Amino acid sequence: MSCPHTVPLSEFQLIERFFRDAGAARGDVTLPIGDDAALIECPADRTLVAAIDTLVEGVHFPRGSPARSIGHRSLAVNLSDLAAMGAEPAWALLALTLPRADEQWLADFSRGFAALAREHGVALVGGDTTSGPLCVTVQILGLIEAHTALTRSGGKPGDLLFVSGTPGDAAAGLQLEQGRMRLADEVIAGELTARFRFPTPRIALGRRLREFASACIDVSDGLLGDAGKLAHASGCAAMLDLERLPISTALGAALGERRAREIALTGGDDYELCFAVPAARQPALRAALPPDDWGYRQIGKLSEGSGARVRERGTVIEFSHSGFDHFHE
Amino acid sequence: MSCPHTVPLSEFQLIERFFRDAGAARGDVTLPIGDDAALIECPADRTLVAAIDTLVEGVHFPRGSPARSIGHRSLAVNLSDLAAMGAEPAWALLALTLPRADEQWLADFSRGFAALAREHGVALVGGDTTSGPLCVTVQILGLIEAHTALTRSGGKPGDLLFVSGTPGDAAAGLQLEQGRMRLADEVIAGELTARFRFPTPRIALGRRLREFASACIDVSDGLLGDAGKLAHASGCAAMLDLERLPISTALGAALGERRAREIALTGGDDYELCFAVPAARQPALRAALPPDDWGYRQIGKLSEGSGARVRERGTVIEFSHSGFDHFHE
Repeated sequence: MSCPHTVPLSEFQLIERFFRDAGAARGDVTLPIGDDAALIECPADRTLVAAIDTLVEGVHFPRGSPARSIGHRSLAVNLSDLAAMGAEPAWALLALTLPRADEQWLADFSRGFAALAREHGVALVGGDTTSGPLCVTVQILGLIEAHTALTRSGGKPGDLLFVSGTPGDAAAGLQLEQGRMRLADEVIAGELTARFRFPTPRIALGRRLREFASACIDVSDGLLGDAGKLAHASGCAAMLDLERLPISTALGAALGERRAREIALTGGDDYELCFAVPAARQPALRAALPPDDWGYRQIGKLSEGSGARVRERGTVIEFSHSGFDHFHE
Repeated sequence: MSCPHTVPLSEFQLIERFFRDAGAARGDVTLPIGDDAALIECPADRTLVAAIDTLVEGVHFPRGSPARSIGHRSLAVNLSDLAAMGAEPAWALLALTLPRADEQWLADFSRGFAALAREHGVALVGGDTTSGPLCVTVQILGLIEAHTALTRSGGKPGDLLFVSGTPGDAAAGLQLEQGRMRLADEVIAGELTARFRFPTPRIALGRRLREFASACIDVSDGLLGDAGKLAHASGCAAMLDLERLPISTALGAALGERRAREIALTGGDDYELCFAVPAARQPALRAALPPDDWGYRQIGKLSEGSGARVRERGTVIEFSHSGFDHFHE
């Protein structure tokens, strides 16, 4: 007799078709995706680094976002966590909840995921597809040489604070994608939208920062908040200088300088690295990793105390979700 | 100034409060939950085993299911994947998407998760909480001695097929929980409901089966379908004998024998193990793991061919999602 369960629902076929090759081929994966679990040979001289992140439609990306972007971002946000540790990415597992199995959507999602996975040598070793509201969870595994991982907690008062890239671009891109902002200049709009849709995890920078940084965090919830988390974990206060914030030409042109700085502080979705470096190590950092080549900039420093504050020309400014409220001396 | 981002939204606090201790303490976790990623020391002589599974409200459990059950099941379904490989559980990561942060719900969820995690020595090393429709993804990592993992693909024609536990109970429990079935006997109803809400991953059995089984799969989508997947991966056909199916007293009392056997074949959510053993190894299996002590039973065998079929007193019966359709010779 024929049994409807023999080829069960679509999960097996979906995984087979769209995800079997959606990553790098790695010799250390001894049983790939398709069984109850994957088998991985972990090098004896490495520490395993593990993180998990979820993207929910309507929360982390607008309804109707391009599937290729969702595939890219679901992996990128996880790679960014590894970057913040200084780890080397290796393997990923993907849990995909979908309202329906749309082939074109799956093909595009898989393409976005696979391109980034291959770029970083990540093998996709496990998957689960379920039916429900669109929601993507990726779990990433990486490797790091023993006792070399960066953490959030190693910063000390006096350490200088840096950020990579140009924070705020992605938040502006999201507003464009949501239709909450419009720009006449299509080139600038395209540039900012791309920064939201296809963030660049700073893996290479994270790897090198292990030689110099005392603490590191990835900027996902907004630079000021994430600098505050680093400071909190390090038992310090963070002070950021408004005029030091790196603002992209596109963001400045789109929003004007003041609003650009505001969104750079609070926007989120940057997936840049915020890191602390002891002042004495700064010359070595700049010599080994020239800031213009590596794309980072000093934005403030850690000090005794707690909290995260912003100064403008040396004066602490009040700040809230709604923007700069007022000044006080 | 005070900054609203310094203690960012609720994620950090949620994770801190409900999940920091929601697992076993393990000395091999050198950086626990709370940083961008966790650091884990993987023993040099072990292979890493990784799986991921998602539970979506309204799909994998009814709306309004007890949070403690959801916490338990989210880990149990993943532990069951490790059981099917013969692996020893070690670490888990949890991605929890919630419509709102309900403290009582979180406390109950965490309690259900933590009790099972501690029972199996699983440390919770990573978490992500997001806002959205209720959806739980757990990623599990386990360890196994090199070259000893069970897979779905090692079965050969002539191998005997076994199942652990009493499949069908959980499916009946789900129907009770959904109100699609009612039972006058509250003890029986409670027993079946508990089998859905708190499945038992067969870790110890899976570990021991490595000595005897040629192939193994966990039964999550229905015994007949999952036996078919094992057979397919092994390049065989599976033949199940209806009268051999182990039916619990509760299930037989609730549904009558015929409907009980039907739901045992197709019900799903059992998280039992279905495994193949070469006929020549059966005496050794029974001697080392007495079936009554270990709770498993022979239900059929693998043969040349493809597909999964059911016989009743030696005659193949037709079968579909709606039950036994009709017989043919």
